[in-house]
Amino acid sequence: MNRLYHVPLSPFCRKVRLTLAEKRIEVELVEERYWQPTPDFLRRNPAGKVPVLRMDTRVMSESQAICEWLEDMMPSPPLMPRDADGRYEVRRLCAWFDDKFHNEVTSKLLYERVNKRITGQGYPDSKNMKFGATRIKTHLDYMAHLLDQRRWLAGDAMTLADFTAAAHLSCLDYVSDVDWDRHAVVKDWYVKIKSRPCFRTLLVDQVPGLLPPAHYADLDF
Amino acid sequence: MNRLYHVPLSPFCRKVRLTLAEKRIEVELVEERYWQPTPDFLRRNPAGKVPVLRMDTRVMSESQAICEWLEDMMPSPPLMPRDADGRYEVRRLCAWFDDKFHNEVTSKLLYERVNKRITGQGYPDSKNMKFGATRIKTHLDYMAHLLDQRRWLAGDAMTLADFTAAAHLSCLDYVSDVDWDRHAVVKDWYVKIKSRPCFRTLLVDQVPGLLPPAHYADLDF
Repeated sequence: MNRLYHVPLSPFCRKVRLTLAEKRIEVELVEERYWQPTPDFLRRNPAGKVPVLRMDTRVMSESQAICEWLEDMMPSPPLMPRDADGRYEVRRLCAWFDDKFHNEVTSKLLYERVNKRITGQGYPDSKNMKFGATRIKTHLDYMAHLLDQRRWLAGDAMTLADFTAAAHLSCLDYVSDVDWDRHAVVKDWYVKIKSRPCFRTLLVDQVPGLLPPAHYADLDF
Repeated sequence: MNRLYHVPLSPFCRKVRLTLAEKRIEVELVEERYWQPTPDFLRRNPAGKVPVLRMDTRVMSESQAICEWLEDMMPSPPLMPRDADGRYEVRRLCAWFDDKFHNEVTSKLLYERVNKRITGQGYPDSKNMKFGATRIKTHLDYMAHLLDQRRWLAGDAMTLADFTAAAHLSCLDYVSDVDWDRHAVVKDWYVKIKSRPCFRTLLVDQVPGLLPPAHYADLDF
């Protein structure tokens, strides 16, 4: 059986989970306490991070490298365009969310509020949270700017860029940090992606001691 | 004329410069003070980061996305294997250096010592520098572990993974932060890559007020 070592509220794990589910690849989910790494875990990934995907004899890490590998091996249904310019735009936006959005928003809101508590690193830093709450607005504005011109973030087809953005936003939505009323076009995009069968696995996630808001799993929120 | 907006001691810019030079694509280098972004610069890249590559009518950002685009458009000489497993390993290692090595080493040593001064953010934090100086040893050990089994970092051919690692290490070498005597196999690898014609552009870089050590441009150091 294929296995994904993950934590539920990690955007990088969620991106891989969405890609696996969209391509109908079944995996057993195994929660990994990466902040207390065991020798076994470090053997699977010397970087000490999740996600780690075990498929047959392969053990793979780094979410973008895993998703590109899945796309190379199982190109249907496609999550990358076939032309170089289209692929560039998908990769640029994946990096936008996994790097810029992650540094400015995910790490400032989700990690302060959830990861610090889970890993026993103390209380949230209010300066960080204020910074994240300000920056997420700019990012939602940028998404609206893109979605005013395109059906999906990177063009007219749904791609890995949409999964990457939705992976981050769905984690933040679990802790009620997304103002969906800011842009109708962004909310419409999220309703579309949230309604896909691949998204179901994320909507049943439960973090002990931290209930999601009622709208989290509601497809028509 | 193609243009690359860059700063000399940015590993992400250097990775793109190496890829362009290896593929013999001429570009005009334009230094960009990204920490004082102009409206023009933010139009070219709303993320406010370097590198930005202008080729014909295209304006591109995010170093990995740019390099993959160059590989898609100009596959010769190749910097990625043709098989999915080989490509996965290259992408995993690019992420290793651009994310893990960058967070643990480049940002702790180079940014504390050089970027803080250039951008007027004060003095280096000695705790960060100590952390970076410890972590670089582990990374050099990991490189030696890979190079004990392979001719190049991701396999038997030189790839974008080697350029990514060399881009980070060459910046650190400019400020004398690499102990090349730690592993002969890592030094041999760096001598090989440093001797390539594509590397010449990096060896003549000069940061005002900060001279590199004598061995920096020496091919037989």
